[in-house]
Amino acid sequence: MNASRGVGEFDLIERLAARLEPLESGLGIGDDAAAWSPEPGRLVVATTDMLVEGIHFRLEWTTARDLGWKALAVNLSDLAAMGARPGRALVSIALLPGQADLAEQLYDGIAELARITGTRVVGGDTVRTPGPLVVNVALVGEADPERLLRRGGARPGDLLFVSGTVGASAAGLALLVAGDSAVLARPEAVPLLAAHHRPWPQLALGAALAGAGVRCAIDISDGVASEAWHLARASGVEIEVDLDRLPLSGEAVALLGSARARQLALTGGEDYQLLFTVPEAMLAAVEAALPPDVRLSVIGRVTAAREGGAVRFFEAGAPIDIPEAGYVAF
Amino acid sequence: MNASRGVGEFDLIERLAARLEPLESGLGIGDDAAAWSPEPGRLVVATTDMLVEGIHFRLEWTTARDLGWKALAVNLSDLAAMGARPGRALVSIALLPGQADLAEQLYDGIAELARITGTRVVGGDTVRTPGPLVVNVALVGEADPERLLRRGGARPGDLLFVSGTVGASAAGLALLVAGDSAVLARPEAVPLLAAHHRPWPQLALGAALAGAGVRCAIDISDGVASEAWHLARASGVEIEVDLDRLPLSGEAVALLGSARARQLALTGGEDYQLLFTVPEAMLAAVEAALPPDVRLSVIGRVTAAREGGAVRFFEAGAPIDIPEAGYVAF
Repeated sequence: MNASRGVGEFDLIERLAARLEPLESGLGIGDDAAAWSPEPGRLVVATTDMLVEGIHFRLEWTTARDLGWKALAVNLSDLAAMGARPGRALVSIALLPGQADLAEQLYDGIAELARITGTRVVGGDTVRTPGPLVVNVALVGEADPERLLRRGGARPGDLLFVSGTVGASAAGLALLVAGDSAVLARPEAVPLLAAHHRPWPQLALGAALAGAGVRCAIDISDGVASEAWHLARASGVEIEVDLDRLPLSGEAVALLGSARARQLALTGGEDYQLLFTVPEAMLAAVEAALPPDVRLSVIGRVTAAREGGAVRFFEAGAPIDIPEAGYVAF
Repeated sequence: MNASRGVGEFDLIERLAARLEPLESGLGIGDDAAAWSPEPGRLVVATTDMLVEGIHFRLEWTTARDLGWKALAVNLSDLAAMGARPGRALVSIALLPGQADLAEQLYDGIAELARITGTRVVGGDTVRTPGPLVVNVALVGEADPERLLRRGGARPGDLLFVSGTVGASAAGLALLVAGDSAVLARPEAVPLLAAHHRPWPQLALGAALAGAGVRCAIDISDGVASEAWHLARASGVEIEVDLDRLPLSGEAVALLGSARARQLALTGGEDYQLLFTVPEAMLAAVEAALPPDVRLSVIGRVTAAREGGAVRFFEAGAPIDIPEAGYVAF
């Protein structure tokens, strides 16, 4: 559900959406997932993500099993960002000749995460390709119509939160790109590579936030900077982000230094943590609803309404220029 | 929803399905579409199909607009074969650099068929690829839980029907492969190329059959021979097919001769007509429910229960050997 990941044309998804009939609910292309109400009281949420070999992954760097896990995880993360529950998945794969075993391992990874999250893989398509390998997952779930997380739900006065740590996945990818086997063998590399290969969709957190009354969230697929801009634009607000408060991955800082770790957190992406805003009056409810193993950090505030949106970044109290650009494929 | 289209390993989909949790309803991988009941009285039906450049289409032969139409049509055909109504679609495309205009035209073709059939495109993913172009559509619809068409619904005594004519799409493809511009310019080529580029999903027929009480159908994606085997195997029956009754495309016969036209009807595929069985007692109900523009042909009969299934083909009353193999990509 994200045109920016790899196409390099931020307006393409708007151009494509313009060819279609407008959606009755206003929920469609542009949020983390599409949502519609098949009948009063029910809200179906659906999303799809396509992973292409050489763009989103390399088989020298990932096992097929991890690739399957990740292909499902990125879709589950879209549902988490809406506060939705996972339901059913359809898996399409385009295989090169001789990749039948690889397809089985890929399905094992999908099945593993599906079991953990209560997702059912109900169908799919398996076709041939001259290459590269392509995996597409489409996922349908449900949400409470009155408790949906949206990109456009931020309001002036809200605090800006992020879950977990950020930059770990991009740091893991950076280690793979650099290919220094001595660094890859260091213990700090393990959680970074795990974050890159086996992202954890924040379904419990998304559901908890939605239940507590939170109305604005996005998942971090393209980096904190890019996602903050998405929230600001969709909500029509100005957001200030305090870079000193970013919960950087400690291992990323240890292996790559704090400047690079911060840059990766802002523009690297694939953390699949949630970035969300909370009115101050709702803080106690959020704290009470939080899953026990989730760490949250306040990293900024929604300062004002502003047409078109804006994000301002601060370091040691002074404004600093951060390019908006998100994920850039290797 | 069809592993045979291009992978050339008929057992792969079973091997992949074995990695997953069994589905509670028994409806899943293996039928034309997956189906599940989110609550009593409702049945959700979902399917997905992936089209790969160089395997399923060539941009020298198809416009991007027709490709978009076809990518949605093949999914709608899966729903038609279940007697389901279309609902919402998710569209993923992997584009080469410089294909943004092509993506817009592709979306125009999707939007055109979506409008005609009442399908809403609610989301998607647009990513980069080094090539080839890939289009994946995932489609969710609904069916009446008591009126579902299945592959496994054929019973001894049923008559075997096919809608429309068969072999036209494969004949159109054969003309493109041969590349004889004099033949391609003949008026008979027009409906063959149209059948190949703009298949028409038999949604009205599928709904009418389901409503009339029919319980067994499949859409012809891989050719009559292969689809008849699918029905026989899923239903545990023996089916006899009278080849003299096949409603061959007249234009295919005119341009390619009757022997080749028949071969293409049996093993060419992509007709997206419905192959279905009807108990004799239900014939009047089917006739009364039929959409006015649909032509049906009786081409055989379910002769007996038979574990593992079997299909026997007859020509001028004598048995004839027909290979089961379906669609073979160019």
